[in-house]
Amino acid sequence: MNALVGVIMGSKSDWSTMSHSIDMLETLGIAYEVQVVSAHRTPDLLFSYAEQAHERGIQVIIAGAGGAAHLPGMCAAKTHLPVLGVPVQSSMLSGVDSLLSIVQMPAGVPVATLSIGKAGAINAALLAASILSHQHPQILQTLHQYRERQTQAVLANPDPREA
Amino acid sequence: MNALVGVIMGSKSDWSTMSHSIDMLETLGIAYEVQVVSAHRTPDLLFSYAEQAHERGIQVIIAGAGGAAHLPGMCAAKTHLPVLGVPVQSSMLSGVDSLLSIVQMPAGVPVATLSIGKAGAINAALLAASILSHQHPQILQTLHQYRERQTQAVLANPDPREA
Amino acid sequence: MNALVGVIMGSKSDWSTMSHSIDMLETLGIAYEVQVVSAHRTPDLLFSYAEQAHERGIQVIIAGAGGAAHLPGMCAAKTHLPVLGVPVQSSMLSGVDSLLSIVQMPAGVPVATLSIGKAGAINAALLAASILSHQHPQILQTLHQYRERQTQAVLANPDPREA
Amino acid sequence: MNALVGVIMGSKSDWSTMSHSIDMLETLGIAYEVQVVSAHRTPDLLFSYAEQAHERGIQVIIAGAGGAAHLPGMCAAKTHLPVLGVPVQSSMLSGVDSLLSIVQMPAGVPVATLSIGKAGAINAALLAASILSHQHPQILQTLHQYRERQTQAVLANPDPREA
Amino acid sequence: MNALVGVIMGSKSDWSTMSHSIDMLETLGIAYEVQVVSAHRTPDLLFSYAEQAHERGIQVIIAGAGGAAHLPGMCAAKTHLPVLGVPVQSSMLSGVDSLLSIVQMPAGVPVATLSIGKAGAINAALLAASILSHQHPQILQTLHQYRERQTQAVLANPDPREA
Amino acid sequence: MNALVGVIMGSKSDWSTMSHSIDMLETLGIAYEVQVVSAHRTPDLLFSYAEQAHERGIQVIIAGAGGAAHLPGMCAAKTHLPVLGVPVQSSMLSGVDSLLSIVQMPAGVPVATLSIGKAGAINAALLAASILSHQHPQILQTLHQYRERQTQAVLANPDPREA
Amino acid sequence: MNALVGVIMGSKSDWSTMSHSIDMLETLGIAYEVQVVSAHRTPDLLFSYAEQAHERGIQVIIAGAGGAAHLPGMCAAKTHLPVLGVPVQSSMLSGVDSLLSIVQMPAGVPVATLSIGKAGAINAALLAASILSHQHPQILQTLHQYRERQTQAVLANPDPREA
Amino acid sequence: MNALVGVIMGSKSDWSTMSHSIDMLETLGIAYEVQVVSAHRTPDLLFSYAEQAHERGIQVIIAGAGGAAHLPGMCAAKTHLPVLGVPVQSSMLSGVDSLLSIVQMPAGVPVATLSIGKAGAINAALLAASILSHQHPQILQTLHQYRERQTQAVLANPDPREA
Repeated sequence: MNALVGVIMGSKSDWSTMSHSIDMLETLGIAYEVQVVSAHRTPDLLFSYAEQAHERGIQVIIAGAGGAAHLPGMCAAKTHLPVLGVPVQSSMLSGVDSLLSIVQMPAGVPVATLSIGKAGAINAALLAASILSHQHPQILQTLHQYRERQTQAVLANPDPREA
Repeated sequence: MNALVGVIMGSKSDWSTMSHSIDMLETLGIAYEVQVVSAHRTPDLLFSYAEQAHERGIQVIIAGAGGAAHLPGMCAAKTHLPVLGVPVQSSMLSGVDSLLSIVQMPAGVPVATLSIGKAGAINAALLAASILSHQHPQILQTLHQYRERQTQAVLANPDPREA
Repeated sequence: MNALVGVIMGSKSDWSTMSHSIDMLETLGIAYEVQVVSAHRTPDLLFSYAEQAHERGIQVIIAGAGGAAHLPGMCAAKTHLPVLGVPVQSSMLSGVDSLLSIVQMPAGVPVATLSIGKAGAINAALLAASILSHQHPQILQTLHQYRERQTQAVLANPDPREA
Repeated sequence: MNALVGVIMGSKSDWSTMSHSIDMLETLGIAYEVQVVSAHRTPDLLFSYAEQAHERGIQVIIAGAGGAAHLPGMCAAKTHLPVLGVPVQSSMLSGVDSLLSIVQMPAGVPVATLSIGKAGAINAALLAASILSHQHPQILQTLHQYRERQTQAVLANPDPREA
Repeated sequence: MNALVGVIMGSKSDWSTMSHSIDMLETLGIAYEVQVVSAHRTPDLLFSYAEQAHERGIQVIIAGAGGAAHLPGMCAAKTHLPVLGVPVQSSMLSGVDSLLSIVQMPAGVPVATLSIGKAGAINAALLAASILSHQHPQILQTLHQYRERQTQAVLANPDPREA
Repeated sequence: MNALVGVIMGSKSDWSTMSHSIDMLETLGIAYEVQVVSAHRTPDLLFSYAEQAHERGIQVIIAGAGGAAHLPGMCAAKTHLPVLGVPVQSSMLSGVDSLLSIVQMPAGVPVATLSIGKAGAINAALLAASILSHQHPQILQTLHQYRERQTQAVLANPDPREA
Repeated sequence: MNALVGVIMGSKSDWSTMSHSIDMLETLGIAYEVQVVSAHRTPDLLFSYAEQAHERGIQVIIAGAGGAAHLPGMCAAKTHLPVLGVPVQSSMLSGVDSLLSIVQMPAGVPVATLSIGKAGAINAALLAASILSHQHPQILQTLHQYRERQTQAVLANPDPREA
Repeated sequence: MNALVGVIMGSKSDWSTMSHSIDMLETLGIAYEVQVVSAHRTPDLLFSYAEQAHERGIQVIIAGAGGAAHLPGMCAAKTHLPVLGVPVQSSMLSGVDSLLSIVQMPAGVPVATLSIGKAGAINAALLAASILSHQHPQILQTLHQYRERQTQAVLANPDPREA
């Protein structure tokens, strides 16, 4: 099955965060591809990746990066596909630098920014599912089921004193 | 033409920011609806709005709010549509409170967060166009043209010393 | 004895913080109920909980949440009871996001916000006691005794060099 | 009518913020008293005010202060009444200093903290009404009416493009 | 020898920080007294301590506190002695709350604020020595020697690669 | 009369803040000298100023600076006199940069830091008076009178609704 | 004369800040070129600019940008020339977002970051002069003279009370 | 070989960060010297170091410091050489204090600021290489090779799931 979602990250050290995007895409049954693309160490790769993603069939790009996190924004500068940015927690500033570097894009080139860290990586996959669901009824159905399950998980076990 | 994008905001005072989403949607030729929905003053309206948006044909929701900005996140809790959150600048904390209240969603319910203020409002419309462009070739074409125009505007007038 | 205080939290992971509210309510002899209610995963439960709390005899609601902490504010949007918000420390931003999401409510719908984390959870129970003490002389007396004991504990052992 | 709510503030310069508490108390028909009490310039007055408030019939204290805002917390140290703290926006740090000085109380002595500035001043009065409503059915009814009116105001005029 | 410096702290948990003030006072040969005084749990003790310090011969007060750190400022409100404030690192906000609560005093009542944590505790003792040195030549001489020793310690061992 | 307090500032642009120190020193009848000394533009002047202040009879140095405010700390590195640092509000970061650059001194060289801006400038003069008062009974008496006047000013005019 | 310094900025709106770099380069007699290059709107131009700067004779690049300021870092990713980054003050977050986006570069690709706003723009030109001075004795001499003049300007006019 | 780069740091405790500058200088084959110079404990050494660096053949100074990090800025005040500042992470405030103390220099005296911590230390060496490369073709070549190697390292191993 052709990949619908491209997941990129600035460094292998982002994998412990971004692997949660992959896990959720698999849970939702969405085909993906995944690769390290560094805005600063491999800028030409970033540009060719972003330029060619659409024609390869990618419909949504998830980009995770930390610190001066330029990957999502520069990717968005080179494609019309929706780019979903995940701020990876930096060791120094708790991810505030990553968040601001990703979210504060100027008018004209948007990045859809998610929460810092693991929650953001999971939510990027869910947002991708939501975006894809208009054209992919199977994804819509799986997304419905996932969200229903998480609601039922709370309702079935409401007492916080029980493990 | 049926509205594809629903634009909501927490208060009339958000209009000076959120009107930029409307202007950009019109520039891009995307049908929309717009209304004040307050998470705190009209919570029931928020829930019914979010529940019924999909069946009314809305494919993307843009939600702008300031301060303890609960509108985008609670909207996302009640729909599977992509919810795009615009942090409106608060008078006290420059929009940091709005940004964190919108972006830091827990795993399970994503909000696609844009920049604080006017740039975010513009970008929410552009992101909506990007999301809709898979199914609406006309929107894709208009988005291409818009972005090409903004690139040419820089290239045609590169000297910052000229007005 | 009918519960006077309803303690809710967004997730089981908030229990290590919110259990301190429970412990203090027990110390003060105040009847309570406790349950997980997630603003984002179980929004309908949140609304029905908030709507029905008053008629079930609840007089004060304590709500703890982290990150984009919408639980206290949305609860307050659906009830006239005093809602006491406890910002649970998030793993990324030390609870600043939780604090701002809870405290920066717009005019019209108040949340009484306590300190971040354990101290806030303890203080929410003490504030509940203070609120209830007008109608419940026994609670007033217990609160007096508790605060007198904590004063005496300092006075009796003023040397910081002794354990 | 005997005052039920005591409103204090650290300086006359806080009046432009705290007058909104007074306006809302009058809207809600709640008897109040108001006075400048400075934690740093009149510490003895603060202590006697806090000690005697209960016996004078005060049931809730609203305290507004800016900068190193010690007034609400020191007031709470000297009374068992609920103390509602309003962070007044400081000229230098947007009220972040006021907010943290008020909200980060240690375990044992709570302050119910509201939003920074005007919204917090309004909400302090609404929270006082909520606290008083258990014993004062008239206040409960007025509070219900006020909140219903603000809901209807949004519903009756949902178009942000109209003034 | 009569104590010249009074060292107070809000809680026994501040001892691991404030013990560094004591160690430095001993290094400098300055007589001191030390005790837990809680602004919130023992406000009356704080007032009597501050009022009586001068007549007991205390010339400088060092006050350490964390969170909503009201101890130094309220102490300063009740005495004309120099009050030196040490922000103790809070577990949630790295001591930013302590720092702002101590340093942002309003015009009229100063607190001399030192660095957050251990460095601040050490420096409070050194600042006390500096203040006392005008009247106590022995302290001036010891202070000179201490600072000369720390300069020589750097000069004698300039290679960072050696332990 | 020989100057007891030396007031320095990094730039003429700091005068609108630091003039409040001068006004308060005059109110308190304390002899002073005042001059621009820039840590970055006149580092040699700073060192000679700090080295010679003591022998010229200066007993306290007040240093105001903004941005990367190195003046107070470098002054303290070159003298054993108490150095009182006033963070001048920077145009970009509200004085947070100035505050942290002044207050976060390493162990070994203290700076007594006051509030950001005008309040800090006033309080630096009051703290200087407090430090000098042990040896100068006239200053002690004037300080007492000043603080008593400010207390009476609040007590005499407690109604915030009156100008 | 061939340009030695290339000054680029993300938008014409950055000109009011970056014109201070130009003014200082002219004061120092350093040949320059200046142009708008937008990382997000003209990414290909940015890459070709950065790739070709060296062969055109540019020895230092000054890049000013605001918000999610990717221009300096992406420029540095495509050249071995020193890139000097100037954070332009954003309207929402005082330039904190610009500063962190520029300074927090990952290991491997440095950006030399200056102060936020006008001071940073001036200092970028001075730093360029310092870098160029090894090979350009005339620039070294002019830089010496400029710094000597600014020192003398302080020394000649030390009284802050005079305009 | 004569040292071209002088590496200084405020304390031996900065070595665990600044050793990364040394390692990178060695990787790049650039001659250096390294020493502890404390702005606050050895101010005279700092001044003589900065004054004499140029005549000793030093062409770039790298200065690392934490907290109220005055070392880079004061060094820059005493030399015309480029000064590269590395903010060392402080234990309390994650290096925000160090960053702001270094980067927010006033107009007239620049410091080239790098990222907080290890990445900044590495990048300072790379920036030094970039500055030196105009006159030292061997350094230019080594820098080219280093950056090419880091690009190839990403390209050769793009799968984040492999170690």
